[in-house]
Amino acid sequence: MFKKNNSPSLRCKLVQIFNGNHPRLGNSFDIFITVLILISLIALTVETIPDLPSWLRQFLYILEIIIVSLFTVEYISRILAARPHSNYVFSFWGCVDVLAIAPFYFGLLGLGLDLRAIRVLRLLRVLRAFKLFRHAKAADRLKNAFQSVKDELTVFAGMACMLLYLSAVGIYFCENEVQPEIFSSIPGSLWWAVVTLTTVGYGDAFPVTVGGRVFTFFILVLGLGIIAIPTGLIASALTNMHESSKED
Amino acid sequence: MFKKNNSPSLRCKLVQIFNGNHPRLGNSFDIFITVLILISLIALTVETIPDLPSWLRQFLYILEIIIVSLFTVEYISRILAARPHSNYVFSFWGCVDVLAIAPFYFGLLGLGLDLRAIRVLRLLRVLRAFKLFRHAKAADRLKNAFQSVKDELTVFAGMACMLLYLSAVGIYFCENEVQPEIFSSIPGSLWWAVVTLTTVGYGDAFPVTVGGRVFTFFILVLGLGIIAIPTGLIASALTNMHESSKED
Amino acid sequence: MFKKNNSPSLRCKLVQIFNGNHPRLGNSFDIFITVLILISLIALTVETIPDLPSWLRQFLYILEIIIVSLFTVEYISRILAARPHSNYVFSFWGCVDVLAIAPFYFGLLGLGLDLRAIRVLRLLRVLRAFKLFRHAKAADRLKNAFQSVKDELTVFAGMACMLLYLSAVGIYFCENEVQPEIFSSIPGSLWWAVVTLTTVGYGDAFPVTVGGRVFTFFILVLGLGIIAIPTGLIASALTNMHESSKED
Amino acid sequence: MFKKNNSPSLRCKLVQIFNGNHPRLGNSFDIFITVLILISLIALTVETIPDLPSWLRQFLYILEIIIVSLFTVEYISRILAARPHSNYVFSFWGCVDVLAIAPFYFGLLGLGLDLRAIRVLRLLRVLRAFKLFRHAKAADRLKNAFQSVKDELTVFAGMACMLLYLSAVGIYFCENEVQPEIFSSIPGSLWWAVVTLTTVGYGDAFPVTVGGRVFTFFILVLGLGIIAIPTGLIASALTNMHESSKED
Repeated sequence: MFKKNNSPSLRCKLVQIFNGNHPRLGNSFDIFITVLILISLIALTVETIPDLPSWLRQFLYILEIIIVSLFTVEYISRILAARPHSNYVFSFWGCVDVLAIAPFYFGLLGLGLDLRAIRVLRLLRVLRAFKLFRHAKAADRLKNAFQSVKDELTVFAGMACMLLYLSAVGIYFCENEVQPEIFSSIPGSLWWAVVTLTTVGYGDAFPVTVGGRVFTFFILVLGLGIIAIPTGLIASALTNMHESSKED
Repeated sequence: MFKKNNSPSLRCKLVQIFNGNHPRLGNSFDIFITVLILISLIALTVETIPDLPSWLRQFLYILEIIIVSLFTVEYISRILAARPHSNYVFSFWGCVDVLAIAPFYFGLLGLGLDLRAIRVLRLLRVLRAFKLFRHAKAADRLKNAFQSVKDELTVFAGMACMLLYLSAVGIYFCENEVQPEIFSSIPGSLWWAVVTLTTVGYGDAFPVTVGGRVFTFFILVLGLGIIAIPTGLIASALTNMHESSKED
Repeated sequence: MFKKNNSPSLRCKLVQIFNGNHPRLGNSFDIFITVLILISLIALTVETIPDLPSWLRQFLYILEIIIVSLFTVEYISRILAARPHSNYVFSFWGCVDVLAIAPFYFGLLGLGLDLRAIRVLRLLRVLRAFKLFRHAKAADRLKNAFQSVKDELTVFAGMACMLLYLSAVGIYFCENEVQPEIFSSIPGSLWWAVVTLTTVGYGDAFPVTVGGRVFTFFILVLGLGIIAIPTGLIASALTNMHESSKED
Repeated sequence: MFKKNNSPSLRCKLVQIFNGNHPRLGNSFDIFITVLILISLIALTVETIPDLPSWLRQFLYILEIIIVSLFTVEYISRILAARPHSNYVFSFWGCVDVLAIAPFYFGLLGLGLDLRAIRVLRLLRVLRAFKLFRHAKAADRLKNAFQSVKDELTVFAGMACMLLYLSAVGIYFCENEVQPEIFSSIPGSLWWAVVTLTTVGYGDAFPVTVGGRVFTFFILVLGLGIIAIPTGLIASALTNMHESSKED
């Protein structure tokens, strides 16, 4: 739509770059941003390792400054490119972009907030990674498949929640007497219900009474069905999407 | 069917309210009852947390009185609305409704029953939640899907039970000698069989002999098939239901 | 085929009873045998519980004598009914039937065999339960579904075995140095591979080195596919069987 | 293609043997090599058991010499049969074949390399087993099924990687304070994420804070879908492959 402009303005050029249809650059901007995100994620990961040598810590800090600067430039450019500017600022991706750089500036200010709180804010930087999906077209097919089995999924989700709750209540009354530390209350027993019905089974909580074990057996038979069937449903729906899109 | 009545009696109004087709109230009664059930479930959950402050315990008790009163009013209204009255009293939902309020009145009486027994009776209050499904239409499709693969599910259920039993017998003879505490008897070994074949694997019981481990391998190969295939079956049947209902 | 006999001989009557087409008894013989098998299985299960009261142990012994007597009568009748007699003796179910009663008589003889060996022979009594499937028609559909995806299952079984072996070899070289007790040899590491790839995860053996954990990650990604896909395959095949049989 | 030669040269005979279309030998050469590979794999497995008697260790060493000799003869024959010789040397299977025998000769040389390094090289001998798949035709159907759902699998793989990373970041911030040993850093928490999302659940790492447990619940709900759906997808695709190939 901008190809008709013989001498595109700076704003038009920016829009072309951000949309990935600039005549020369193409989608190389997207690739550049993606690489930046990946580097910043690796930096965040390495940063958390305890007892890092001080030169590495320093290097990571400088890397952080460079990445935040580039993202800040990107953020300002995107504001300038949008008409009206506020359109971008208050859009979903505008919020994500500002949250991706805000923790760093909050850290610089060093206000009344303690360091721990700032580090937790940094977790939001992970949200940058969501941008990678902005242009993924294959995700649409996935979305349609989900849409087509939405009703069944809702029923199953309701049944799964109820089963989780019933499991927690049942095991609480079976095991509380014998293991008051582990099955201390219904909310506490919910942890057991989640770990068991997903078949993770860490082994930090398990029934020891005969009643609790028989109860677990019946809950598992029901639960495996309720949790396994929806995934089969989505797979079937996706295959149907796939075939009907091939026929078109 | 009641819309032809120009001046509906109290009974007719009650029936309309309970069926959700009252001209003014619509299904707001259902929503009100659902919210009440959810509140009472949350109260039951919070109640089990040990070392609650006494004001919260008092508040929960008053909440309990209010909820039980409302459910009692509902129960009596439903009896009055039914023709003949005994129709509702002896119906499935009539029983569920009375079981949902009975534990409270038994608690008030404080008969020869000890407190522990009363607390277990309260578990039945969870049955209130089943009422939420009274009007769910989507559940019908699920029921049809189950119906269509009923025969195969029966065969698999039989095979699964047999495999569970054979696993328990096999592991008992393999491991009893070495771990007499954990694999003390065939009923005791069944717990291991359930935890292993559902792939939960808490880690409270596992074979240590070579024979027991080789046996576990073969049992798992068989068991994963027998437990995983039925879920795939129901998912396929549901997809077929879904499609044939779309074609209509 | 025996209905044309106006005065059927004892042999014919026996054949009719065993086939479940006797004019008066129908399939009540099958039901009787099934109940007997279930009682004997329950007896076997209870017998293994340690510290049983002596009166229960005595009762179980008498029950055992009654059941074995009845099965012996059935075994002899079946031999008499078959033409030639050896046809049944050397058939698969003939062997199962003799193995179901042999342990008891071996126990009576009390030869050089020690008691332990005799108890292990009793495990074969469980084989009686297989008789329940003799007439199950629904099992045929299952067999056809397996048949139709036989080739794919063979490829997957081969891949699964290879993956199990490669996992054991890989984890042995990663972890043997650090945990020589748990990953003591490749056969010993196979136990870890089985428990991990089936996602049971007892927690008795797990990698602690970085190399071992990265290796586990890749093995699991591959393994989940190889073990989960075949079950989906059989489920799809079964649904197809089901539909084509409905169309007929 | 070699059947027109009336007096086939040694090279032609070799090619016929290697391709399994020799008039007399047929595919017996393939079977012979497969048996050799299996024997060498069993030898490798037994070798790792600690405290083997010295005569067995000696026997395994001699077996190793025989097998490596036969593989060396095969390797040289394959070079001679190829036109030009280098075609085979630099092909994928040429590399596999040389890696299968190289560790032994490196062991003989006993250079500056320590024994440990040589033993790790031996792991490559396992690659011999891959040769078994050289002629498997059924694997083609599997490859096509994978191909047809490649796009969806890529999206799911991306989502799975992201979910794994997000899980590790989330649990690190939830649990690091309370369990600094187990959730020591984001890379360390990745191990927990892998073990939990695959539902293996060894029990060596699990959240204990309320925040961490609620987080685990949501991660598992998402994760089971993302990991379970792709396997259902491939199964559906394979069934379609199967049916369309039957229709041809």
